[in-house]
Amino acid sequence: MTSRRNVLFIMCDQLRFDYLSCAGHRRLKTPNIDRLASRGVRFTNAYVQSTVCGPSRMSAYTGRYVRSHGSTHNGVPLRVGEPTLGDHLREVGVRCALIGKTHMTADEEGMERLGIARDSIIGVRIAECGFEPFERHDGLHPSTSYDPDPAYDTYLREHGFGAANPWEHWANSGEGENGENFNGWLLVHADKPARIPEEHSETPYMTRRAMRFIEEAEAKGEAWCAHLSYIKPHWPYIVPAPYHAVYGKADIQPPVRSEAERLLPNPIFEAFQQERYSKNFSRDEVRETVIPCYMGLIKQIDDQLGHLFDFMEKRGLFENTLVVFTSDHGDYLGDHWLGEKYLFHDVAVKVPMIVYDPRPEADGTRGTTSDALVEMIDLAPTFLDYFGGKAKPHLLEGRSLLPLTSGERTSLRNFAVSEYDYSGDAARLKLAMPVSDCKLYMITDGRFKLVHGESLEPMFFDLRNDPGELRDLGREPSAASDIERLRKMLMRWLALPNNRITVPDEWLTEIDDKIGHFDPIIGSGVLIGYWDEAELAKQQEARRRWLARRDRK
Amino acid sequence: MTSRRNVLFIMCDQLRFDYLSCAGHRRLKTPNIDRLASRGVRFTNAYVQSTVCGPSRMSAYTGRYVRSHGSTHNGVPLRVGEPTLGDHLREVGVRCALIGKTHMTADEEGMERLGIARDSIIGVRIAECGFEPFERHDGLHPSTSYDPDPAYDTYLREHGFGAANPWEHWANSGEGENGENFNGWLLVHADKPARIPEEHSETPYMTRRAMRFIEEAEAKGEAWCAHLSYIKPHWPYIVPAPYHAVYGKADIQPPVRSEAERLLPNPIFEAFQQERYSKNFSRDEVRETVIPCYMGLIKQIDDQLGHLFDFMEKRGLFENTLVVFTSDHGDYLGDHWLGEKYLFHDVAVKVPMIVYDPRPEADGTRGTTSDALVEMIDLAPTFLDYFGGKAKPHLLEGRSLLPLTSGERTSLRNFAVSEYDYSGDAARLKLAMPVSDCKLYMITDGRFKLVHGESLEPMFFDLRNDPGELRDLGREPSAASDIERLRKMLMRWLALPNNRITVPDEWLTEIDDKIGHFDPIIGSGVLIGYWDEAELAKQQEARRRWLARRDRK
Repeated sequence: MTSRRNVLFIMCDQLRFDYLSCAGHRRLKTPNIDRLASRGVRFTNAYVQSTVCGPSRMSAYTGRYVRSHGSTHNGVPLRVGEPTLGDHLREVGVRCALIGKTHMTADEEGMERLGIARDSIIGVRIAECGFEPFERHDGLHPSTSYDPDPAYDTYLREHGFGAANPWEHWANSGEGENGENFNGWLLVHADKPARIPEEHSETPYMTRRAMRFIEEAEAKGEAWCAHLSYIKPHWPYIVPAPYHAVYGKADIQPPVRSEAERLLPNPIFEAFQQERYSKNFSRDEVRETVIPCYMGLIKQIDDQLGHLFDFMEKRGLFENTLVVFTSDHGDYLGDHWLGEKYLFHDVAVKVPMIVYDPRPEADGTRGTTSDALVEMIDLAPTFLDYFGGKAKPHLLEGRSLLPLTSGERTSLRNFAVSEYDYSGDAARLKLAMPVSDCKLYMITDGRFKLVHGESLEPMFFDLRNDPGELRDLGREPSAASDIERLRKMLMRWLALPNNRITVPDEWLTEIDDKIGHFDPIIGSGVLIGYWDEAELAKQQEARRRWLARRDRK
Repeated sequence: MTSRRNVLFIMCDQLRFDYLSCAGHRRLKTPNIDRLASRGVRFTNAYVQSTVCGPSRMSAYTGRYVRSHGSTHNGVPLRVGEPTLGDHLREVGVRCALIGKTHMTADEEGMERLGIARDSIIGVRIAECGFEPFERHDGLHPSTSYDPDPAYDTYLREHGFGAANPWEHWANSGEGENGENFNGWLLVHADKPARIPEEHSETPYMTRRAMRFIEEAEAKGEAWCAHLSYIKPHWPYIVPAPYHAVYGKADIQPPVRSEAERLLPNPIFEAFQQERYSKNFSRDEVRETVIPCYMGLIKQIDDQLGHLFDFMEKRGLFENTLVVFTSDHGDYLGDHWLGEKYLFHDVAVKVPMIVYDPRPEADGTRGTTSDALVEMIDLAPTFLDYFGGKAKPHLLEGRSLLPLTSGERTSLRNFAVSEYDYSGDAARLKLAMPVSDCKLYMITDGRFKLVHGESLEPMFFDLRNDPGELRDLGREPSAASDIERLRKMLMRWLALPNNRITVPDEWLTEIDDKIGHFDPIIGSGVLIGYWDEAELAKQQEARRRWLARRDRK
């Protein structure tokens, strides 16, 4: 094991926590991800901080809750100056690079106000959420609002897939039996193969780009953190052959839903049930067409990770590289009569989280699972900890997972929190809510789960007795005391944000010992509330004695 | 009235709301401030957002609560990129200048991380909390941690008051009868005159600097906002002749306190009662020595404002200048067995707030008082409104006061909030609290006041039946339902922060009309959850119809 350390931070997009064979999926086989789990710890209660790409990712990349970083919706720029994982890692000499998706929007207005040039090194980092953009690829390039320059398009053209928009025309469209080009955005075509040989589709392409980055960093002898960020299994639900045909409708699991969920549901739940995507995913035909494709996309990722892990193995990188496999949120896929994500049932708010910690200290936990409550914001402090950086609890709201991988601790916190702001959804208009009041909070202590929103009844689930979350107890008198308990927990969390980001706690505590002996501020000459010379002299004498004692030590 | 508009934003430091003759002080005479009140609206329930200089001022200068701007203690740098009053006013072509104190600490680390040079124009503004520093003067220059370069010191030296530290040696020391130099930091010397002729002391000096700024801006034909920010009546409690002898112990008002307040007080209240400054200010001798000086300092400010207002009158500036007179927090002065500020009794958390609005629309409210709940953060949006800028409710958490000065409305909000973080006080050690848990919140609906802190019993006052706040009802069963009501109000406030600062609400609402007719996102080519071509075609047709209807209009 060299003294140099690295981090490989793999994120999928919209991958449910339960769509891996190691997580109990009965038909999907993910042997490579399972292999990683067998060498690390698989967290079974990993919560994202928001149930939508951008906000969840901004939490991952800052180590801070959405209420702190303020990027509340997809497309809301992350404010300039919000410190990122990349900033913290650069401080300890680590190159922190992006290969794939971030869903970051740059705060152009803030940059202009601060006079930061977009094309300066610092400007590029700020615009890319703190990462060095080895390759940025958000994987959403509809022709109508087309970004003409993704490197992936150039790659496709170079390989013979020319088109005004090769991403859409080839990689994300479906091929008919007679060569038709079917619109890959439409769910009905999810059973068709993508119009491209597998090796040229996004997942293998991005995997090779990650290898390229690693080779380059290793050649330079750099410590690195590589964020390999796949767009898949996120829609467009379309996968190249042979993966379009690996799974069929016999392989999909039955939907988790009950008729009771449609009977007087909580108004926010009802509003999302009424969305087109929810109505469609509530139909068997849709599930049976899309889910096999979704599984194929995961299978493809697993195969690609097999190549990547072999590549790392050959180079001895498993000896000094901490590897994380996770996702930015889940996908309802028709469970609870919903499609997409946004709300807080486990299938949306929980993600896979596998942490392979190469240190010998972690040998005792290899292949285990942990049901500790962990949060996506734990990754940034985990990486900083792994690289030997000083903890920044005033800033990073998550906690290092290393005490869990080393077996030193079995839990980190009493509750996990997630947020979603529905002011950008039709639900705001349906519920006639002002924009300001659309913030939803989920809090769980592992046993119960509360969803709190302004002017809304609570949603409340007993996760032990109702793991499928089919019975909302929000109106049950018998649940009132538990609801109140979780509401108090939420209030505590709301009342204690980490907003003092410019100075650490030590800035306050370094004078603690002095305070017991004298008024420490007199050292600065600021004398508050002293009556006369005699009173001041006593404090000055106490100070002299304390300083002399300290100097003797 | 010219079409150009200006704002004169006068702030005192540590001036209680009730130490003005217009506010009912029985002996102190402040005819010039009263004159301003007679031409404007005097707000009797104006709350600061924190009871200590720095955090309160950062709220004033950003229009945001402390939980939002994060400068929780004196000396905690305001994070780079936090948008300020100066930023908003510059956008509408207004020069926003500082003359006096801000208590700002620059976020040097943040500036370095973003590559912003400290000596660039933008760098200077960021370091000065968004202001152009026409003259920065924080008025706290103890010799031991001496800033050798305040312009005021140069001024003193030029006028014959040479010393290593002329601010301390002359302007803030007391003159004995036999020429002795008494330490002005000590309360016992508050009855002595400062060692300097009145015209050279800080208040008249700063007043002249404000006139100088106004002359300069007027000569250039600029619209301006001048923040005239006096250090006084803040300590060192020392005032030049004749003001040291204008008031005597017969002029001071009896302390507002009761023996009951010392009998099993709330632990946080008890901890602050035990501070040296509190014990000293609980002694009659101290109050009788210091308060006449405090009153003299206010009297001096009033006289100087007389000169300033005459100066403005001569130039016709009352025709187009909105004038605010306020303070950053109060001073216990022995009330409630406390000295200094920090806690939330009205004498600490309420401030004078007089708003002179020159517009004819405000003629109907001249000379009136308003008991509406207003907050210090209302000033920034008031100024922006006055200059015709677009409201920024996603960013500015206060509200313009102009609907109150124009008589259009009589109230703005149902509650006011203030915050104080006691992790920098001995109270944290006394109560054995972790740094993270030391945030205190005050919320009042005008009738009741709740103080909430983690792991603390509530403090609770009935402001109508106990205006002196002598009976803490926090443990009274009869108050339980009102306590709960205010706690819910606080939870609502905590749950709905304005954290999405990079885009306005319109970013979300501009598609509201579309949403009623079609899926607006299809315009971008991103197609979420459509089953097939037919379903998509319907939406596209609905979109075409909507666009055609819009174009016909």
